Amino acid sequence: MLERRYRLLGHNSPLFYQKPLHLVRGEGVWLWDADGNRYLDAYNNVPCVGHCHPHVVEAMHRQAATLNVHTRYLHENILRYVERLTAKFAPPLAMAMLACSGSEANEIALRMARQQTGAQGILVTDLAYHGNTEAVAETGIAFMPEAKTTRRVRAFASPDAYRGPEGLSGEALTAHYLESVRAAIEDFQSQGIGVAGILICPAFANEGLLEAPPGFVEKAVAMVRAAGGLYIADEVQGGFGRTGAYWWSHEAYGITPDIVTLGKPMGNGFPISGVIASSAMIESFGSWGMYFNTFAGTPVACAVANAVLDVLENERLPESAVSTGAYLAAGLRSLQERHSLIGDVRDKGLFMAVELVSDRASRAPASAESGRLINLMRERGVLISRLGRFDNVLKLRPPLPFRPEHADILLATLDECLAAL
Amino acid sequence: MLERRYRLLGHNSPLFYQKPLHLVRGEGVWLWDADGNRYLDAYNNVPCVGHCHPHVVEAMHRQAATLNVHTRYLHENILRYVERLTAKFAPPLAMAMLACSGSEANEIALRMARQQTGAQGILVTDLAYHGNTEAVAETGIAFMPEAKTTRRVRAFASPDAYRGPEGLSGEALTAHYLESVRAAIEDFQSQGIGVAGILICPAFANEGLLEAPPGFVEKAVAMVRAAGGLYIADEVQGGFGRTGAYWWSHEAYGITPDIVTLGKPMGNGFPISGVIASSAMIESFGSWGMYFNTFAGTPVACAVANAVLDVLENERLPESAVSTGAYLAAGLRSLQERHSLIGDVRDKGLFMAVELVSDRASRAPASAESGRLINLMRERGVLISRLGRFDNVLKLRPPLPFRPEHADILLATLDECLAAL
Repeated sequence: MLERRYRLLGHNSPLFYQKPLHLVRGEGVWLWDADGNRYLDAYNNVPCVGHCHPHVVEAMHRQAATLNVHTRYLHENILRYVERLTAKFAPPLAMAMLACSGSEANEIALRMARQQTGAQGILVTDLAYHGNTEAVAETGIAFMPEAKTTRRVRAFASPDAYRGPEGLSGEALTAHYLESVRAAIEDFQSQGIGVAGILICPAFANEGLLEAPPGFVEKAVAMVRAAGGLYIADEVQGGFGRTGAYWWSHEAYGITPDIVTLGKPMGNGFPISGVIASSAMIESFGSWGMYFNTFAGTPVACAVANAVLDVLENERLPESAVSTGAYLAAGLRSLQERHSLIGDVRDKGLFMAVELVSDRASRAPASAESGRLINLMRERGVLISRLGRFDNVLKLRPPLPFRPEHADILLATLDECLAAL
Repeated sequence: MLERRYRLLGHNSPLFYQKPLHLVRGEGVWLWDADGNRYLDAYNNVPCVGHCHPHVVEAMHRQAATLNVHTRYLHENILRYVERLTAKFAPPLAMAMLACSGSEANEIALRMARQQTGAQGILVTDLAYHGNTEAVAETGIAFMPEAKTTRRVRAFASPDAYRGPEGLSGEALTAHYLESVRAAIEDFQSQGIGVAGILICPAFANEGLLEAPPGFVEKAVAMVRAAGGLYIADEVQGGFGRTGAYWWSHEAYGITPDIVTLGKPMGNGFPISGVIASSAMIESFGSWGMYFNTFAGTPVACAVANAVLDVLENERLPESAVSTGAYLAAGLRSLQERHSLIGDVRDKGLFMAVELVSDRASRAPASAESGRLINLMRERGVLISRLGRFDNVLKLRPPLPFRPEHADILLATLDECLAAL
């Protein structure tokens, strides 16, 4: 099977685990491989209401059997969906453009920010990843090829309360990281590129679910706005009740973004994404550049997206994510007391980062150990992944129906695997 | 409903017809509106095997109820699909990258062409449209804002055997259009931009389904290749048996593209697209820039795409498209004998362009009449659209299960509407 895959898709189509997993079935927080082995899914955020949720599957089936056309015809599903969706945002975020992928949503956001401001410069963190189209790849500063040569994207240091410079904390640490933002803005201005905006995942998920020092985001956004730029919140990972006692990760701070992008969990695996902004901004963008997306906002896409909202609301999954998240975080912190490898535990709703270090004082990253650990966990039936600057941060991001009993399995397995390393 | 739409999606989200159509049901080549009126669909190519085809709907339902995950796990569906799909291309086109939309596929193709050649310049026709992301918008030379300022895209005159300069035909007309390609190449070379490739829809669909003069495509591609560039065939509209007695519109000419992009009909409305190239090219691109697409190539996407291939093959729809297309074209040409408004009829498989002119000698475009006509047709229950440089070309592009009895309805209604104009 691996041979066929290499022949048909090449060797660079990424795969998880040293021994790749051949999955055949999913239900709730569980997955099964071709040999009948069951795995607890503590990684996948796309199936946010659980794998193969019957309400979502039925909504897709019913609509696919009835009608599926593009949005150049009128249909109730898209109106009902955008009405429900925009109601979950603070004013003036009241209008939507729908697309298919997170990359497409971020493309719209970047085009919109540049059109609105007349400037080109976009600020991102130095560990950002926002997608795979050319203009979005330019923002993938650490590893995307286009990012190496672009002049219109500048990175600032990822704000990291755990790995900040020795001796700095609180306001001083905030000031340290803001200096990096200031330098990027000044660089754009001195080169006549101007500041179009700052594009961040407010949960700093790809950066390692970092905890920013107090006031950093608010002040960085204020600096960008003072320079004429917009605040773009990439909620592709952090949105839909994943990261805290609110629907959107940007609500952790007291500021409303100018543009919000949405993706992954939006359709529980059906390709749908979107951009939310003010009516004025979307009308202006729309009259500037014709935008139409054949596959976006179709009756089927919106039936699915409406069904996902139904389940999130009816099963109170965002609320459950907060309580299960707190339970899991407490368990991880108690593991930390017994395993010196765990340097830091960061939790935002039902999204956890467990940073592994070989020495707590120096915070030396335990990169090799984290690689061995995720493969050990997979062998013992729990799926997680890792990320971060040193690939030493375990990434726990289960479907939202994850409950304390599932957290117990995860914690027990992690405990065993840490002991077995 | 229109008011809600304007409030939620803005005034620039495009709609068809003076009186927009509120559709609620589809089946085969038929659509129904909210008032129970039935329409013959002679426009939509996305539902290529017919609206709501039960085999496709069931395949989607079955897989969605079983498992849907990204491609970092192994799954049979993607392998089976890419095996079947690549078997339909000539060597060396043997490997695929999957994505969600035509824009995403063309993004990959442009990134790949630029990476492979080390050059930046892309040639397109002066009426091209290939998608809505920034880099692809640069190729939308006639109306996308980014196209106005880009230095790395140059247009050549759309080759048009009907509207070419007075007195030129055959070889002389070909030479006339090739001169425009030569100038674009020379412009890139003199500015040090280099030639990365030529990106065309081989059916020249968006240009008005133009008939290129003999040898034009072959010679233009040869010139681009001699300058170091690649031939990218955009089969998003023309692929999957739509345009002739072959699966891909590029087969109308005797040359194999370096990169092929696929989209619209691929999933009968489910968001799936793809790029086909040689193994060497995809391996090289993959090692240069990490590419992963969360929603692409999932078990559900590939179940749907496999089901679409099943229907195309089992119901012999590409073959039927050729015969019904010939029947419809003959009918249109006989209408042309009686209606002087019809200046030209162009047919490629089951894709027709009917160019309306107010004067056959001067070929003065009948733009206003074509606008009135498509609205009249809609009122009488037949859905078509229009396009072209002067918006005077009727676009007939029905689902492939369209049969001679449907063509008869279309022809009779068109006859009536032309008479009623």
